[in-house]
Amino acid sequence: MTQETAIKTVTVDLGDRTYPILIRRNLLETTGALIAAQVPGSRVVIITDETVADLHLGTLQTSLRAAAIEYDTLTVPAGEKTKRFEIFERLVDDILALRLERGDAVLALGGGVVGDLSGFVSGVVRRGMKFIQVPTTLLSQVDSSVGGKTGINSRHGKNLIGVFHQPSLVVADTAILDTLSDREFRAGYAEVAKYGLINDAPFFTWLEDNHSAIFAGGEERDEAVAHSCRAKAAVVAADEREAGQRALLNLGHTFGHALEGAVAYDSARLVHGEGVSIGMVMAFEFSARLNLCAPEDAVRVENHLKTVGLPTRISQIPGQLPPLETFMDLIAQDKKVSRGQLTFILARGIGQSFQEKAVDPAPLRDFLEEQLAQ
Amino acid sequence: MTQETAIKTVTVDLGDRTYPILIRRNLLETTGALIAAQVPGSRVVIITDETVADLHLGTLQTSLRAAAIEYDTLTVPAGEKTKRFEIFERLVDDILALRLERGDAVLALGGGVVGDLSGFVSGVVRRGMKFIQVPTTLLSQVDSSVGGKTGINSRHGKNLIGVFHQPSLVVADTAILDTLSDREFRAGYAEVAKYGLINDAPFFTWLEDNHSAIFAGGEERDEAVAHSCRAKAAVVAADEREAGQRALLNLGHTFGHALEGAVAYDSARLVHGEGVSIGMVMAFEFSARLNLCAPEDAVRVENHLKTVGLPTRISQIPGQLPPLETFMDLIAQDKKVSRGQLTFILARGIGQSFQEKAVDPAPLRDFLEEQLAQ
Repeated sequence: MTQETAIKTVTVDLGDRTYPILIRRNLLETTGALIAAQVPGSRVVIITDETVADLHLGTLQTSLRAAAIEYDTLTVPAGEKTKRFEIFERLVDDILALRLERGDAVLALGGGVVGDLSGFVSGVVRRGMKFIQVPTTLLSQVDSSVGGKTGINSRHGKNLIGVFHQPSLVVADTAILDTLSDREFRAGYAEVAKYGLINDAPFFTWLEDNHSAIFAGGEERDEAVAHSCRAKAAVVAADEREAGQRALLNLGHTFGHALEGAVAYDSARLVHGEGVSIGMVMAFEFSARLNLCAPEDAVRVENHLKTVGLPTRISQIPGQLPPLETFMDLIAQDKKVSRGQLTFILARGIGQSFQEKAVDPAPLRDFLEEQLAQ
Repeated sequence: MTQETAIKTVTVDLGDRTYPILIRRNLLETTGALIAAQVPGSRVVIITDETVADLHLGTLQTSLRAAAIEYDTLTVPAGEKTKRFEIFERLVDDILALRLERGDAVLALGGGVVGDLSGFVSGVVRRGMKFIQVPTTLLSQVDSSVGGKTGINSRHGKNLIGVFHQPSLVVADTAILDTLSDREFRAGYAEVAKYGLINDAPFFTWLEDNHSAIFAGGEERDEAVAHSCRAKAAVVAADEREAGQRALLNLGHTFGHALEGAVAYDSARLVHGEGVSIGMVMAFEFSARLNLCAPEDAVRVENHLKTVGLPTRISQIPGQLPPLETFMDLIAQDKKVSRGQLTFILARGIGQSFQEKAVDPAPLRDFLEEQLAQ
């Protein structure tokens, strides 16, 4: 791909909080100019992690200097443990010490951890600063860059503390994804596939036909990112605060979160996208079990995820797993539980997902028991 | 006043976040029923301070039990020092440990400190729980109960960390105000007078005629609270995020904050409302100095505030004050400063305030010097 390829723009339509997501290879080197156009006059504080800083911080800083944007940089350790209160407090204090104002911007350069943490920080300093995201993983480009969810973890669970805070600009450089490991790229791909499974069967078919070019970094990759952002943006615009339709985005996530909890969020054993991959297959199989969807659809979902190298079965998770009752508890603790009822996203077919607010625990338990025994 | 007096309702109109403020004597004892009607099905976690708990917690808990509302209670120390990160973190963790859900409510029983802290807590647990305010001071009934500002203090300044988070219901029991000290009641009254001075000259005249009944607890008190909430609600509805018109609510506050800063927020020397009282007189005198308003208006403002016993001059603040340059620094640090420019709310007369975004530092310095020398 050359730089001459046009920038793809996805507009997230949220009234006076509407913002653009700009997508193309090698956009990082023009981020300064994009900020100058979109968030004029702002000072910037970059938040990044040590791993990403080594690879991409220099390019970003050069582009900010070229656009005459004043900036400071705060670096946090890489990894999920960074999403905690102590680091949150330190960043808030550091930004206040820099005397940044409400019109200045926090820029998150990194994956989901940096994005979620920085978004929360920017949402509370002076009751809300501007926020710019430069997501560096496929997962954060297609998922956390849309929707305004921010947060940190608690000893009671993941992402339990945070705010909804929309960015002013998202710059998704798809060439950055060349630096990801295959495993990390695949994990993000699970969320791309999810958008097809929720409500867009033609997109799922397109993915079945084009996944190789997406992995290889062709223009199909840009298209997959743009299509995913557009899909999420449509859902978020209809339901910013997750009252209803937005819940569909949790397809595969209730099972997936339970699996992540079961391995104590040990990313050596299971990363989020892998949990979602297995979780989506489970959601379709459970739907088939309840006679909601054809068993062939569940098979087709599993086949595609397998083809790109994603795990699709609990048995593929290395190491010992906890017993059935622990899984049932983990599911009951999911933050989407409402007034004690088990809520799941189920499907009537590929592209035909829906929210079921009162799942019967008895068949769920039987289903889980079988899955664990496989 | 008897209980038979009708409840006054002020509706804060914010689209899907619209909420009512209910005002009357002895409303605390029916708070449970009001919550059951307005926020049905929610569990409640009360946050209060030790002083308020002694006086009013029992009445509230009885009313919740009468309405069959499940509740827990978290108590914090009284005083401004409670608005800090450590207590914020502890409350968030306590609420997560109670396994409350998004549809459950945090109820703030207390003054501004409890309200600001609890509002921030409710705004970040699970990215936003429901929030109910039962303000127990005149200041919090007429000011912090409207507008959704929440927050804690930082070593860099007051209220620098927080979110905008609207309550679902505010219950303002005006009989609770009988338990305030005269000094605390008067301090709240400064904000009541402010609403007249901003854009409502007839209300200021009404206050000049009716202040005795307001202080004595007559129905005029309910009317003054309702009128103030209505005034603030109108401004907030027009400008929820403080982009423009809402800035008018800062009349007297830039000077006032500087004075509070000058005594290091020592409430034995100066409480917020007293700072606002002196600050409003300064804003009118400075406006007269700039030939923006008639000197008689500044005199009239001072006379009324004096009549109710509020301080109106810097010289009334006990103890040593810092030199002029410190004041200039404190003013420059105010969080309403935008891109380095000095912004003040000035007036063309009583009820004719406006925002001046580029105040010339030279006459300001001269004016402050004189005020300090008085």
